[in-house]
Amino acid sequence: MRSPITFTGNPLDRADAVRSDPARLAALWARGGRLLQMEGLEPDLDGGALIWTEAGEAPKCETVFLGLDVSGIGHFAPVPAPDQASTAPASFNLWQALNGMDHGEIAIYGAARALVGWHARHRFCARCGGATAPAKGGWQRDCGACGAQHFPRTDPVVIMSVEHEGHLLLGRQPRFPPHRYSALAGFVEPGESIEEAVAREIFEEAGVKVRDVRYVASQPWPFPSSLMIAAHAFADDPALTIDHSELEDARWFTRAEVVEAMHARDRGEDGAAFSAPSRTAVAWHLLADWLED
Amino acid sequence: MRSPITFTGNPLDRADAVRSDPARLAALWARGGRLLQMEGLEPDLDGGALIWTEAGEAPKCETVFLGLDVSGIGHFAPVPAPDQASTAPASFNLWQALNGMDHGEIAIYGAARALVGWHARHRFCARCGGATAPAKGGWQRDCGACGAQHFPRTDPVVIMSVEHEGHLLLGRQPRFPPHRYSALAGFVEPGESIEEAVAREIFEEAGVKVRDVRYVASQPWPFPSSLMIAAHAFADDPALTIDHSELEDARWFTRAEVVEAMHARDRGEDGAAFSAPSRTAVAWHLLADWLED
Repeated sequence: MRSPITFTGNPLDRADAVRSDPARLAALWARGGRLLQMEGLEPDLDGGALIWTEAGEAPKCETVFLGLDVSGIGHFAPVPAPDQASTAPASFNLWQALNGMDHGEIAIYGAARALVGWHARHRFCARCGGATAPAKGGWQRDCGACGAQHFPRTDPVVIMSVEHEGHLLLGRQPRFPPHRYSALAGFVEPGESIEEAVAREIFEEAGVKVRDVRYVASQPWPFPSSLMIAAHAFADDPALTIDHSELEDARWFTRAEVVEAMHARDRGEDGAAFSAPSRTAVAWHLLADWLED
Repeated sequence: MRSPITFTGNPLDRADAVRSDPARLAALWARGGRLLQMEGLEPDLDGGALIWTEAGEAPKCETVFLGLDVSGIGHFAPVPAPDQASTAPASFNLWQALNGMDHGEIAIYGAARALVGWHARHRFCARCGGATAPAKGGWQRDCGACGAQHFPRTDPVVIMSVEHEGHLLLGRQPRFPPHRYSALAGFVEPGESIEEAVAREIFEEAGVKVRDVRYVASQPWPFPSSLMIAAHAFADDPALTIDHSELEDARWFTRAEVVEAMHARDRGEDGAAFSAPSRTAVAWHLLADWLED
């Protein structure tokens, strides 16, 4: 049985219509609204559970509206100070904590982190340099000087497994944990489709030409604001030309090696041909999808 | 035979490694480099063909590096003044011109338009309000004040056909031409997958719950910087609750009506149940994909 994709499954109703209704937002805040407790971009946790405080009693900081729960209670998150909103990957502590958290709570936190981080990093207008102010419950910022409207940013990233005669191409970035190999990845650029971005990135990083790119799955990834788009592709020629400015290494692994690495990761064991990506990452799903096929 | 997707198929090599090499960029500019002739964000055209000038002779404006052609010649595009870089959809003239343009040239122009428009609208640092300067051949802007790096923005948008018992759900926005119906669409938000965005948008705009979301195709769309992600989904209950702040109308069309509308659009005829989307739009491919299935 395939695990659900981490950071999906947010149980809150985003209630788009509420966002543009300041009176309703104020009422939701005052009448039992809940404010997510965060330190900068990291969640405060109580035994792996998110901590919510009564919104009405909390200090009046800048907040975003996350949505409504099934009882119609408004959920909010606080925007951190700019110096507390880095674009760094998840901290080791957060990474560990995700394993013990509820699937839906991870998704609520992920949406909150991406959104409040965007606010903290977008206090000024890219068009004119003027100060911006939050609007639409935190789903927009407006420039007080030139009137430009700005919307939260979501960056599409392609991440892909490549197959050649029963082998899978995986690579390692210098920042990876020891022995970790995972699917190659890169940002989709202006002017290209998902399929073109997949082919370009694999050729840039590993020198491999691919065909028959097939979409597999997607995942919101709030470090800081990516949409991971997972795909599978085939290569006819396995010769590698590795771009060492991007990758420390890239190798073709056999199906048996991938099976062993996935099992070893589930059992917390060492000794496989490589250390497989975490179940938290959509790369895990790419490998699982390949093994199922 | 399916037409290729408009704005894909850029024949230039993006040559990522060249971007970070100012000396090589300068040499490419000086030695036969070609500068795309544009008026603001619109292309100058000669009988439907893009017009290129010798880069070395052109005025020294801010430019971006588009890539290399098969002969290794550098291709560049000029960044317009901020007041010439609106986020409006394609002009009527451009829309008409696309029909007569070469597929690869449309893709070169689309990439150029998205990228130079981003520069014109991002002259200041969203983090601190300081002035930014282009870097990496135009694929980055750096803040002179706080040092933040900024990258071109690409906004993922889902666009989807919904099926119920042989009928297809299409809607019309107030800005559409008369009788035009097309696939529903909306921006992917922070914290949701493609599949979740599809379900949310259809429910928000038409009140319809969907299942079995299937990815179909993607398209870069430079008005101003979208990545269109086309999907198909199924609905069990066809009852519609239309959000009239988003849609003027939404209706279920029979297969025969969709076939007739696609044929009428190809023959330039009126009289079908609705006016089908242009072949230029990925919505056309969604409808064609549905009819083929």
